[in-house]
Amino acid sequence: MYVIIVYDVEVERVARVCQYLRRHLHWVQNSAFEGEITPARLERVKAELRDLIDEKKDAVYFYILQDRHALRREVLGREKGSTSTIV
Amino acid sequence: MYVIIVYDVEVERVARVCQYLRRHLHWVQNSAFEGEITPARLERVKAELRDLIDEKKDAVYFYILQDRHALRREVLGREKGSTSTIV
Repeated sequence: MYVIIVYDVEVERVARVCQYLRRHLHWVQNSAFEGEITPARLERVKAELRDLIDEKKDAVYFYILQDRHALRREVLGREKGSTSTIV
Repeated sequence: MYVIIVYDVEVERVARVCQYLRRHLHWVQNSAFEGEITPARLERVKAELRDLIDEKKDAVYFYILQDRHALRREVLGREKGSTSTIV
Protein backbone atom coordinates (compact mmCIF):
# COMPACT_ATOMS: atom_id res chain seq x y z
CA MET A 1 0.00 0.00 0.00
CA TYR A 2 0.94 3.62 -0.44
CA VAL A 3 -0.26 6.42 1.77
CA ILE A 4 -0.22 10.19 1.72
CA ILE A 5 -0.89 11.77 5.10
CA VAL A 6 -1.72 15.47 5.57
CA TYR A 7 -2.62 16.90 8.91
CA ASP A 8 -3.96 20.09 10.45
CA VAL A 9 -2.93 19.92 14.10
CA GLU A 10 -2.83 22.69 16.69
CA VAL A 11 0.62 24.13 17.39
CA GLU A 12 1.06 22.50 20.83
CA ARG A 13 0.78 19.01 19.29
CA VAL A 14 2.33 19.45 15.84
CA ALA A 15 5.95 18.65 16.81
CA ARG A 16 4.96 15.32 18.36
CA VAL A 17 2.89 14.33 15.31
CA CYS A 18 5.72 15.32 12.94
CA GLN A 19 8.39 13.46 14.93
CA TYR A 20 6.18 10.39 15.11
CA LEU A 21 5.45 10.32 11.37
CA ARG A 22 9.14 10.86 10.49
CA ARG A 23 9.74 7.40 11.97
CA HIS A 24 7.26 5.78 9.58
CA LEU A 25 7.08 7.77 6.36
CA HIS A 26 8.90 10.32 4.17
CA TRP A 27 8.51 13.95 5.07
CA VAL A 28 7.19 15.84 2.03
CA GLN A 29 6.65 19.30 3.46
CA ASN A 30 5.04 20.91 6.50
CA SER A 31 2.18 18.65 7.60
CA ALA A 32 2.54 16.21 4.68
CA PHE A 33 4.09 12.73 4.58
CA GLU A 34 4.01 9.87 2.12
CA GLY A 35 5.39 6.37 1.64
CA GLU A 36 4.92 2.63 1.35
CA ILE A 37 3.19 1.02 4.32
CA THR A 38 1.68 -2.34 5.20
CA PRO A 39 -2.00 -2.55 6.22
CA ALA A 40 -1.02 -3.68 9.73
CA ARG A 41 1.42 -0.83 10.17
CA LEU A 42 -1.11 1.70 8.87
CA GLU A 43 -3.57 0.54 11.54
CA ARG A 44 -0.87 0.97 14.17
CA VAL A 45 0.00 4.45 12.90
CA LYS A 46 -3.68 5.44 13.04
CA ALA A 47 -4.06 4.12 16.59
CA GLU A 48 -0.87 5.85 17.81
CA LEU A 49 -1.77 9.12 16.07
CA ARG A 50 -5.14 9.00 17.79
CA ASP A 51 -3.25 9.18 21.10
CA LEU A 52 -1.16 12.15 19.93
CA ILE A 53 -3.92 14.42 18.62
CA ASP A 54 -7.05 16.02 20.06
CA GLU A 55 -9.78 14.53 17.92
CA LYS A 56 -12.11 17.43 18.69
CA LYS A 57 -9.65 20.05 17.34
CA ASP A 58 -7.13 18.36 15.03
CA ALA A 59 -7.52 16.50 11.72
CA VAL A 60 -5.36 13.88 10.00
CA TYR A 61 -6.22 12.85 6.42
CA PHE A 62 -5.12 9.50 5.01
CA TYR A 63 -5.10 9.03 1.22
CA ILE A 64 -4.59 5.31 0.79
CA LEU A 65 -3.74 3.56 -2.47
CA GLN A 66 -3.46 -0.19 -2.97
CA ASP A 67 -1.11 0.39 -5.88
CA ARG A 68 1.41 3.23 -5.82
CA HIS A 69 1.55 3.14 -9.59
CA ALA A 70 -2.05 4.39 -9.72
CA LEU A 71 -0.55 7.72 -8.63
CA ARG A 72 1.48 10.24 -10.54
CA ARG A 73 3.29 12.84 -8.47
CA GLU A 74 4.50 16.18 -9.77
CA VAL A 75 6.18 19.09 -8.01
CA LEU A 76 6.07 22.77 -8.95
CA GLY A 77 8.82 24.86 -7.40
CA ARG A 78 11.41 23.81 -4.84
CA GLU A 79 10.93 20.21 -3.57
CA LYS A 80 11.43 20.24 0.19
CA GLY A 81 11.32 16.60 1.29
CA SER A 82 13.49 13.71 0.13
CA THR A 83 10.76 11.76 -1.63
CA SER A 84 11.87 12.57 -5.17
CA THR A 85 13.15 9.02 -5.57
CA ILE A 86 9.76 7.52 -4.73
CA VAL A 87 7.67 8.11 -7.83
CA MET B 1 -8.83 12.51 -13.13
CA TYR B 2 -8.57 13.15 -9.44
CA VAL B 3 -5.97 15.35 -7.85
CA ILE B 4 -4.74 16.09 -4.34
CA ILE B 5 -2.71 19.28 -4.08
CA VAL B 6 -0.61 20.19 -1.05
CA TYR B 7 1.57 23.25 -0.96
CA ASP B 8 4.25 24.87 1.15
CA VAL B 9 4.21 28.53 0.17
CA GLU B 10 5.71 31.53 1.96
CA VAL B 11 3.26 33.61 3.96
CA GLU B 12 3.20 36.58 1.57
CA ARG B 13 1.89 34.36 -1.28
CA VAL B 14 -0.26 31.81 0.57
CA ALA B 15 -3.54 33.75 0.48
CA ARG B 16 -3.41 34.18 -3.29
CA VAL B 17 -2.66 30.47 -3.82
CA CYS B 18 -5.48 29.46 -1.47
CA GLN B 19 -8.02 31.81 -3.08
CA TYR B 20 -7.01 30.60 -6.51
CA LEU B 21 -7.33 26.90 -5.66
CA ARG B 22 -10.71 27.44 -3.95
CA ARG B 23 -12.05 28.29 -7.44
CA HIS B 24 -10.97 24.94 -8.82
CA LEU B 25 -10.98 22.31 -6.09
CA HIS B 26 -12.32 21.44 -2.64
CA TRP B 27 -10.51 22.88 0.34
CA VAL B 28 -9.47 20.02 2.63
CA GLN B 29 -7.43 21.89 5.24
CA ASN B 30 -4.64 24.46 5.39
CA SER B 31 -2.53 24.02 2.26
CA ALA B 32 -4.43 20.96 0.98
CA PHE B 33 -7.04 20.70 -1.78
CA GLU B 34 -8.56 17.82 -3.69
CA GLY B 35 -11.13 17.12 -6.39
CA GLU B 36 -12.05 15.94 -9.85
CA ILE B 37 -10.27 17.76 -12.65
CA THR B 38 -9.81 17.37 -16.42
CA PRO B 39 -6.30 17.03 -17.86
CA ALA B 40 -6.65 20.35 -19.70
CA ARG B 41 -7.78 22.16 -16.58
CA LEU B 42 -4.97 20.63 -14.53
CA GLU B 43 -2.45 22.01 -17.00
CA ARG B 44 -4.06 25.44 -16.72
CA VAL B 45 -4.00 25.27 -12.91
CA LYS B 46 -0.31 24.36 -12.99
CA ALA B 47 0.50 27.22 -15.37
CA GLU B 48 -1.48 29.77 -13.34
CA LEU B 49 -0.01 28.53 -10.03
CA ARG B 50 3.44 28.96 -11.54
CA ASP B 51 2.64 32.68 -11.87
CA LEU B 52 1.46 32.89 -8.26
CA ILE B 53 4.38 31.23 -6.49
CA ASP B 54 8.13 31.82 -6.26
CA GLU B 55 9.56 28.62 -7.70
CA LYS B 56 12.84 29.15 -5.86
CA LYS B 57 11.15 29.26 -2.43
CA ASP B 58 7.72 27.64 -2.63
CA ALA B 59 6.59 24.10 -3.44
CA VAL B 60 3.29 22.70 -4.77
CA TYR B 61 2.81 18.92 -4.87
CA PHE B 62 0.31 17.31 -7.23
CA TYR B 63 -0.84 13.75 -6.54
CA ILE B 64 -2.68 12.76 -9.69
CA LEU B 65 -4.89 9.69 -10.11
CA GLN B 66 -6.53 8.56 -13.33
CA ASP B 67 -9.22 6.80 -11.33
CA ARG B 68 -10.52 8.29 -8.09
CA HIS B 69 -11.63 4.84 -6.99
CA ALA B 70 -7.98 3.78 -6.70
CA LEU B 71 -7.93 5.98 -3.61
CA ARG B 72 -9.41 5.42 -0.18
CA ARG B 73 -9.64 8.45 2.04
CA GLU B 74 -9.95 8.36 5.81
CA VAL B 75 -10.03 11.13 8.39
CA LEU B 76 -8.93 11.00 12.02
CA GLY B 77 -10.30 13.79 14.16
CA ARG B 78 -12.34 16.79 13.10
CA GLU B 79 -12.81 17.06 9.32
CA LYS B 80 -12.25 20.70 8.35
CA GLY B 81 -13.12 20.91 4.64
CA SER B 82 -16.33 20.02 2.90
CA THR B 83 -14.98 17.10 0.91
CA SER B 84 -16.59 14.37 3.02
CA THR B 85 -19.05 13.71 0.18
CA ILE B 86 -16.26 13.04 -2.30
CA VAL B 87 -15.06 9.56 -1.39
